Amino acid sequence: MNSLSKATLGRLPAYLKYLRTVDGEHISSASIAKALGFGEVQVRKDLAAVSGKGKPKIGYETKSLLNRLECCLGLEHREQAILAGAGKLGRALLDYDGFADYGVEISAAFDCVKTMQLSEGGKPIYPIEEMQDYCFRNGIRIGILTVPGSAAQEVCDLMVKSNISAVWSFAPVSLKLPENVVLLRENLALSLAHLQNQLSRP
Amino acid sequence: MNSLSKATLGRLPAYLKYLRTVDGEHISSASIAKALGFGEVQVRKDLAAVSGKGKPKIGYETKSLLNRLECCLGLEHREQAILAGAGKLGRALLDYDGFADYGVEISAAFDCVKTMQLSEGGKPIYPIEEMQDYCFRNGIRIGILTVPGSAAQEVCDLMVKSNISAVWSFAPVSLKLPENVVLLRENLALSLAHLQNQLSRP
Repeated sequence: MNSLSKATLGRLPAYLKYLRTVDGEHISSASIAKALGFGEVQVRKDLAAVSGKGKPKIGYETKSLLNRLECCLGLEHREQAILAGAGKLGRALLDYDGFADYGVEISAAFDCVKTMQLSEGGKPIYPIEEMQDYCFRNGIRIGILTVPGSAAQEVCDLMVKSNISAVWSFAPVSLKLPENVVLLRENLALSLAHLQNQLSRP
Repeated sequence: MNSLSKATLGRLPAYLKYLRTVDGEHISSASIAKALGFGEVQVRKDLAAVSGKGKPKIGYETKSLLNRLECCLGLEHREQAILAGAGKLGRALLDYDGFADYGVEISAAFDCVKTMQLSEGGKPIYPIEEMQDYCFRNGIRIGILTVPGSAAQEVCDLMVKSNISAVWSFAPVSLKLPENVVLLRENLALSLAHLQNQLSRP
C-alpha cells in the first residue's frame, strides 16, 4: 500500500466508526458523505486511496471496506512502539489512550531507573540498558524520544542500534540519523509560536 | 508584519543565537549561511521576510537585524498564554521551558480545583471559574486546551467568552468556534500514525 496523506489518514477513524453502525451489503459515497458532513468528492478520494473505487450506482461493499479501513489503521495488527525518557511529557504520552484508534500502542518506556517501575497507567518503565534487548525481542520499529536535548543524540543512537526504523522526537535539537531511518521532529514550541504569529501583534 | 511561514519562524532562534555571538557592524548572508549550515538562498529569503534585504557587498546591519529578530520572536514583549486542563499533558506543557525561545509563556492554568494550587514548576493552577476574570485582567489572547474531549467544547466556549482569539487544542474532538478565533488542532495520535504509515507494513 502506498502511504496515505496525513489528512486522509486523519479521517479514517471517522469512516470506520460510521461504517460499524450501518447495515446493508453496500453503501454509497453520498450517504457516507452526508452522515459525516464531509464533501462527497473528498469521501470518494479518501476511499479510493484505501480500497479502490466503488461500483457505479451500487457503491462500496460495506464489509470489505470495513476490512480495508481496519487494515490501513493497523487495527488487525496493533503495532507496538517504545518511548525513551519518562519525564512529564513522556509519561503523558505513555498513558494516553488515543493512539489505539490508529493501531499503535506504546508498550514500554525506558529511562535511567535501576529496576522496572510502573507508570500511573500501569505501563512498564525499564532501565535504558534493556532497550536494545526489548526491541529485538518484540520487533519494535517505532521509538518516541522525550529525553532532554542534551541526551537526545545518544539515546537516538541507541534506538538505531536497537533496529528502530522511525523516530518521533520531541527533543529540541537536530539529530543525526542513518538515511534509512525516518525522523519526525515535533516542535511544540514552534506550533505555539506559529499560532501566535497568525494573530496581529498587540 | 505579515505572518511568517512556520519553517522560517522555526529557524529564527538559530539566527538570533548566532548573531548574538558576532562582532562587527555588518554581516553578510553568506557568513550567516556558512556558520549555521543553511543554504544562502534560504538565509536571504528568511531575513528578507524579517527585516528586508541586505545591502549588496555590505550585508545586514547586525544590530538592527538583531532587533528585528527579537521583535519577530516576541522577545521584547513576551506574550502570556493560559492553559485549561492540568492533567498530565497540561502539566507537562505548563512546566516546559522551551516556549520562551519564541516569546510565549504559559502564565497560568485552570482546572476543576477549589483553590489555587502550584504546579511542580511553580506555575499557578486556578479554579476554572476564575478564567474569564484572569484573561480580561491580563489581556490574554492565547488559550491552550488540554481537557478531555467530553469537556472540550464547554471550556472552549469559556475561552471565547474570555476574549481569547487563538485556541491550541489537544482535545481529540471537533470544536465550534466563531470565525474570528484561530484554531490549531494538535492531533498527536495522528502524527504518530502518519509516521507509522511511512514505514512499510511488517
